[in-house]
Amino acid sequence: MLLDHINQPDDLKKLSTAELEQLAVEIRQFLVEKLSVSGGHLSSNLGIVELTIALHALYDSPRDKFIFDVGHQAYVHKILTGRKDRFDSLRKYKGMCGFIKRAESEHDVWEAGHSSTSLSAAMGMAMARDLNGEDNRVFAVIGDGAMTGGMALEAMNHIGHEKKNLTVILNDNEMSIAPNVGALHNYLSKIRSDKHYRKAKEEVELLLKKIPAIGGTLAKTAEKVKDSLKYLLVSGVWFEELGFNYIGPIDGHNLPLLLETLKQSEKIQGPVLIHVITTKGKGYSPAELDSHKWHGASPYKIESGQFLKAVGNPMYTNVFGSTLIELAEKDKRIVAVTPAMPGGSGLMDFAARFPDRMIDVGIAEQHAATLCAGMASEGIKPVFAVYSTFLQRAYDQVVHDICRPNLNVMFAIDRAGFVGPDGETHQGVYDISFLRSLPNMVLMMPKDENELRRMMVTGIEYNDGPIAVRYARINGLGVELDEHPEPIEIGTWETLTEGDTMAVLAVGPMNQVALEAAEAIKKEGINLRVINARFIKPLDEAMLLQLAKEHMPIITMEEGAEMGGFGSSVLEFYARQGIDGMRIRVMGVQDYFVEHGSIKEQRQEVGLTAEHLATQVKSLLPRKRQHA
Amino acid sequence: MLLDHINQPDDLKKLSTAELEQLAVEIRQFLVEKLSVSGGHLSSNLGIVELTIALHALYDSPRDKFIFDVGHQAYVHKILTGRKDRFDSLRKYKGMCGFIKRAESEHDVWEAGHSSTSLSAAMGMAMARDLNGEDNRVFAVIGDGAMTGGMALEAMNHIGHEKKNLTVILNDNEMSIAPNVGALHNYLSKIRSDKHYRKAKEEVELLLKKIPAIGGTLAKTAEKVKDSLKYLLVSGVWFEELGFNYIGPIDGHNLPLLLETLKQSEKIQGPVLIHVITTKGKGYSPAELDSHKWHGASPYKIESGQFLKAVGNPMYTNVFGSTLIELAEKDKRIVAVTPAMPGGSGLMDFAARFPDRMIDVGIAEQHAATLCAGMASEGIKPVFAVYSTFLQRAYDQVVHDICRPNLNVMFAIDRAGFVGPDGETHQGVYDISFLRSLPNMVLMMPKDENELRRMMVTGIEYNDGPIAVRYARINGLGVELDEHPEPIEIGTWETLTEGDTMAVLAVGPMNQVALEAAEAIKKEGINLRVINARFIKPLDEAMLLQLAKEHMPIITMEEGAEMGGFGSSVLEFYARQGIDGMRIRVMGVQDYFVEHGSIKEQRQEVGLTAEHLATQVKSLLPRKRQHA
Repeated sequence: MLLDHINQPDDLKKLSTAELEQLAVEIRQFLVEKLSVSGGHLSSNLGIVELTIALHALYDSPRDKFIFDVGHQAYVHKILTGRKDRFDSLRKYKGMCGFIKRAESEHDVWEAGHSSTSLSAAMGMAMARDLNGEDNRVFAVIGDGAMTGGMALEAMNHIGHEKKNLTVILNDNEMSIAPNVGALHNYLSKIRSDKHYRKAKEEVELLLKKIPAIGGTLAKTAEKVKDSLKYLLVSGVWFEELGFNYIGPIDGHNLPLLLETLKQSEKIQGPVLIHVITTKGKGYSPAELDSHKWHGASPYKIESGQFLKAVGNPMYTNVFGSTLIELAEKDKRIVAVTPAMPGGSGLMDFAARFPDRMIDVGIAEQHAATLCAGMASEGIKPVFAVYSTFLQRAYDQVVHDICRPNLNVMFAIDRAGFVGPDGETHQGVYDISFLRSLPNMVLMMPKDENELRRMMVTGIEYNDGPIAVRYARINGLGVELDEHPEPIEIGTWETLTEGDTMAVLAVGPMNQVALEAAEAIKKEGINLRVINARFIKPLDEAMLLQLAKEHMPIITMEEGAEMGGFGSSVLEFYARQGIDGMRIRVMGVQDYFVEHGSIKEQRQEVGLTAEHLATQVKSLLPRKRQHA
Repeated sequence: MLLDHINQPDDLKKLSTAELEQLAVEIRQFLVEKLSVSGGHLSSNLGIVELTIALHALYDSPRDKFIFDVGHQAYVHKILTGRKDRFDSLRKYKGMCGFIKRAESEHDVWEAGHSSTSLSAAMGMAMARDLNGEDNRVFAVIGDGAMTGGMALEAMNHIGHEKKNLTVILNDNEMSIAPNVGALHNYLSKIRSDKHYRKAKEEVELLLKKIPAIGGTLAKTAEKVKDSLKYLLVSGVWFEELGFNYIGPIDGHNLPLLLETLKQSEKIQGPVLIHVITTKGKGYSPAELDSHKWHGASPYKIESGQFLKAVGNPMYTNVFGSTLIELAEKDKRIVAVTPAMPGGSGLMDFAARFPDRMIDVGIAEQHAATLCAGMASEGIKPVFAVYSTFLQRAYDQVVHDICRPNLNVMFAIDRAGFVGPDGETHQGVYDISFLRSLPNMVLMMPKDENELRRMMVTGIEYNDGPIAVRYARINGLGVELDEHPEPIEIGTWETLTEGDTMAVLAVGPMNQVALEAAEAIKKEGINLRVINARFIKPLDEAMLLQLAKEHMPIITMEEGAEMGGFGSSVLEFYARQGIDGMRIRVMGVQDYFVEHGSIKEQRQEVGLTAEHLATQVKSLLPRKRQHA
């Protein structure tokens, strides 16, 4: 095996092109085997094998900078930079990260996880290089899906203007995670498949050759036309107009062609865009056939391509999807909006049932949010289905276009709380902080999947402004689902267990944790009042006042940042009311970025467990009780 | 005067084109006169007179939707929709808003203030129209500067794909607020001024006409080429490739041409982009000559074009600008980055002194933030100068690209706190909430302009991650400026007055308010300990523990949202420490959007005044003192 002898990029430089091609085969085999056990981003990595080999074979990392957009397609880069032995720990607790990680290797020069950042980063590194008087190369590798994210286009506009030397490799696989949408995608398809461009180019060239034969004034005109037309002959005119030197499209699995194209592009001054066509899942037929399903693969059987799925209760995501269909059957105002995540958000069935009321805008969270605002201003009830971590990208639009004019947009915030193996780039732990500080916002989180259904009814029926329901990336509890879920009165909490020792105000899945702790310490004579704080905003003020009246110590629990989170809003409430002397402890995610692992391990790490709650409860007991 | 008889859009429909042209003259005169007293966005409104008249003359607002991007160029729209009598109260407390405001008129269908939202809103309204089975028209009017904002490009990508009927009017005045930058701008300039395009078009058309005369196989080829070339003949190929029908460029001050072009465009199915060339400040020569200076004009003398400037201490903005030059002279790593606000951010002199270290990326906050991250990863010290309200748009990039990898980016957050007449769209009252909840972030605010200088030194010398200094849109106190400002130890506060009755933890300009209150109530035997909480994060924990030891009641004061703000972090600290029984009150901005007016009026409204603080202090006195 050639791969056995590859421990650093320099090892590639000793190989012939034929050997590099052999290495590509071995790497694919390695990935298919390793990921069958660990799971991970299989299809995008299979698509980028030759490209990554070509970059490392020709250039000098980390002096030359390779910036992988999103960063989940860097497994090949990890293999080639000394980390192939760490694949057994991929995405595991304390193991190798599924994304680029600066702390892991000097070759990891840029961290990502969210899409469309690579061009800005590359431009920053190119500007730094020039300011520092260096002469290294900078490459950004970006997918066609990520290219439509607003910040990527902002960066293109800047790069094309400044004319710094840097290379953008457009890894065009006709896919973001779901099949791609958008006018830019249509344009790329046209370049790629329609003969239109290439034919036009050939024929115009032929015509231009013949034109000198024409005499008279027309010949002069023809000469001018030749000049004028030159720039129109480029198939990537859209990119050329933005100031890039466009090369392509070329086959991204043809290693000799990749090497040659990269070498040739070195001669060009200014920004270059190399348009590379690749196939997601390349070399492993199950993944090639359905690259969407294989984007983030769970462990599978290699021969059959069957996923080894754990059986479990339905996930919140699925309950969301099926409930939205029910609601949309009855309420014609409902429209679902997704930024390129129809599958991940549980909306595939909705899309099939209501194709006209399902809007996938591509990777464009900002546009998605304001689009919702526009629709809401005209009486539509948009449901913006978005992961907590990606909603960050529409923060200003939520503030400015939705909360300020107080429009009836419903947010379905998936992946709220810990997300497990994707780790710190995807944790949904800031949405409570950033949403609850906004006027007019209502924010809910269900304790179980039936409550999610009730909250969705609540959200759809609410017509006084924005309302959000956040839910976790976990299985539900397997509770029975009401056929006709009833709405919940805004700002009301629910007492789950009567108890007079102490109150636990629990958000979402923390209710289950609190109930477990309550059960465990009951035998010690400690009676916890577990309260389901199902509205994060507005608070149940009557219940909070009642707790004050009872001088009840309080512990708040949430899977979100402690800084500015739900617990903090409880503290604020008592301060605002002028109620002093309450004994309150806040349990949440401390002030650091929590890395990959299982959700259980992540909760353990920050202390969001029944055991830890029990300990907290005991330490907060009135002195006499503690010493009793 | 024709204008005297115009009270609603229908009144325009009775006028001839010549009369509409006369009306444009009168409206310009009206604007120049009114704004000479009130101040306001003069130059952008002078540029859009004919266009606004044309829209209201031809179409049926509010059934047809006019969406003005940014919304500060809607004065003409306000005049034509029954609000000309309210111009004396423009941007004043309880007066007419300087932006579009739904509550003001049924003709105000979309509110803005931040740029680049109009296309998403228009698309939302067009989709709602089709879902609702209506047939109204939707127009988005967007400047060339706003067009480069990422979300506008996201929207273009979606609109061009979906092919809904809507009209984008690109109001191209070669300006955002500062002179425009970017590749798209270069492209527009080419269309506009370079004869290249139009000549090519003419000549290719001529050539194509002659081609049938050519015999043989070439004739057949020529036919094909004709087909293939058709789309290349459009000057707006960049927009056509994105799925738009491009019309233009046309003169935006030629009213008959505008009317004719709009009428013609009605026949086109699918999205249309009309490229209109306008002159900012049109018709008032001082504003035409320097539209940048006249963007947001203070009151002026009409004849001379002289601003009636109030004399005052230097603004924080200016102290920032001059100090950055001093620091950059000594530290070659420093680079300034602005998203299209070099003037507003006080960076014009810096730009002149260090043209290579001044980066204006255009309206592109997201790209700006991640560009800074890219530079910081290579040893540059970027200073991202940005208004608090616009930083909202880079929230995800701050979380994901700067705080998470803990890169040395310095933020200079201007317009933090109330902003006065721009009102609710521009208030800088959320940055404390959204920044302090992020790991690794250091957040400062100075009590005076000399402390701003010290904080800048602190920020530049800090190399452990991101650090931000926020400052208000006000004049400094006129204090002496240290020639060699010393850095401040991270996380340390400063006691301004000794006192044992109560502590006031004041942020930034609130120190002055607190000192005033302290002075006023001293005679009543109340001794306030005013503490300058110059670090919002991290807190001065030693000082907080000391206050606890003294059982000192505490009032926190900040010009920012109370929800999740600085006061909230003080409450959190004591909860985290397990220190119960503290008596703490939080003074800040309550949970609603505060409208336009003077900063003084805005502070008054939310109770951030010395009087209100004194009242709060008295109500928090220990009972015995209150009853004494």
